[in-house]
Amino acid sequence: MASPRKKYIHVCTSPALIDQFDVNGKIVVVIDILRATTSMCVGFGSGVDCIVPVEHQDECLAYREQGFLIAGERSGVKIEGFDMGNSPFEFMEPRIKGAKIAMTTTNGTRALKAAQVRGAKEIVIGAFTNISTLCSWLIEQNEDICLLCSGWRDNFTMEDTIFAGAVAQKLRNHFYPYQDSTIMARTLYKSANSRKRYFFRASSHFHRLVHLNLQGDVKFAMHRDKYNVLPLLVGDELHDIAGQQDIAKAKENILSQQANN
Amino acid sequence: MASPRKKYIHVCTSPALIDQFDVNGKIVVVIDILRATTSMCVGFGSGVDCIVPVEHQDECLAYREQGFLIAGERSGVKIEGFDMGNSPFEFMEPRIKGAKIAMTTTNGTRALKAAQVRGAKEIVIGAFTNISTLCSWLIEQNEDICLLCSGWRDNFTMEDTIFAGAVAQKLRNHFYPYQDSTIMARTLYKSANSRKRYFFRASSHFHRLVHLNLQGDVKFAMHRDKYNVLPLLVGDELHDIAGQQDIAKAKENILSQQANN
Repeated sequence: MASPRKKYIHVCTSPALIDQFDVNGKIVVVIDILRATTSMCVGFGSGVDCIVPVEHQDECLAYREQGFLIAGERSGVKIEGFDMGNSPFEFMEPRIKGAKIAMTTTNGTRALKAAQVRGAKEIVIGAFTNISTLCSWLIEQNEDICLLCSGWRDNFTMEDTIFAGAVAQKLRNHFYPYQDSTIMARTLYKSANSRKRYFFRASSHFHRLVHLNLQGDVKFAMHRDKYNVLPLLVGDELHDIAGQQDIAKAKENILSQQANN
Repeated sequence: MASPRKKYIHVCTSPALIDQFDVNGKIVVVIDILRATTSMCVGFGSGVDCIVPVEHQDECLAYREQGFLIAGERSGVKIEGFDMGNSPFEFMEPRIKGAKIAMTTTNGTRALKAAQVRGAKEIVIGAFTNISTLCSWLIEQNEDICLLCSGWRDNFTMEDTIFAGAVAQKLRNHFYPYQDSTIMARTLYKSANSRKRYFFRASSHFHRLVHLNLQGDVKFAMHRDKYNVLPLLVGDELHDIAGQQDIAKAKENILSQQANN
């Protein structure tokens, strides 16, 4: 009997390239290391109930009427009148526990929506803060994967691609290795790993954040495995499904709770 | 007196991303290592008069009526009835000397046209075969540069990005170094340089070409500085302007020759 084919890992370095890989029916990992997906993981690690990623500020304001905290930044700066911006440290505050959050960000939310409208089977959130939990889950699923880097206004960014490379490196024995963008990301990661700080510092987004005095956020985003969380998109909401064996069942439970609210 | 700002090198890893960088008024280097731009350099090194890159096969046939040799491939295979395909070895043949060639390729020609319609100031051709001539010229020009990788059907390809990294590495002291895609390409190049063959072999395009028995072409494409040529797009034609000090004058001469034909 022929062994089943190894599944692909495709690294998509920009949302502008998402249509180069058919994500329909595949697993998409959305990556926005500085800072949306890092902060989302921190939020779930701190006991957030759910996070609703939205594109526009107005949508956040509508969620506030329903008792949500609202979070968002534009060009790295907290939106005026919002409860919180996009910093991982804001997602550790005590008021977070049990809260529902509506969140809009420049790049991360757009990547998430792009995957959603193209019919991805599952959409999960990845960051260094949850990399081991994420990778174990991806190995269990054994499906074709698209690692979708949010980038910066559709441009390639260093930190997202380095993270994609870290994931591809961890999964190298389980997935088909010949995809140019995946080899590139792994190479970049391996070069960067021993001097990650140098690479983060060389990135253009770092320069934007330094300008905003956010070096602490950048340093935090490099730490691995702070939280055993796996945020999964269910309907319009992200929920932590880490440790749940039966995803279909978990999704069903969440959806029926949503319907009851 | 403040020193003038250093110019940028932007690496564009796919024609699909060309609009992330405004190429209007800039210098664009079109890269299609396997095999269009490698073969073009070989052609000029072998005494070709000019090469007209065209998108469609029909356009080539129209040029044949005017005495052009016609060259082209689709999916790596020579187009039936054409004088030549896209292999560098075909561009060394004696009949090449003094010939005008109309050439259509899957990816390279499309990248060239994309740069042309966006108003690039100068469009030149780069490959390992002419890398030193190219880099010396780029340093002399001292303008913002876009290194445009042709890719494969808008996908990232290893060999084009490795070459872009090699150029960025050579120019690192002359240009502004903080562009994420440029740092990525340089990193990839530095990792690949000592084991270029491994990287080329890992690339998906290599796998496509091996299938077509074109390993010799791949090996040839890795050799540096076989030819002191610099193909520049003038009107619709590529001409070798290596060694010409006054580009404006050189272009004027070529254009007036074109008008007289």
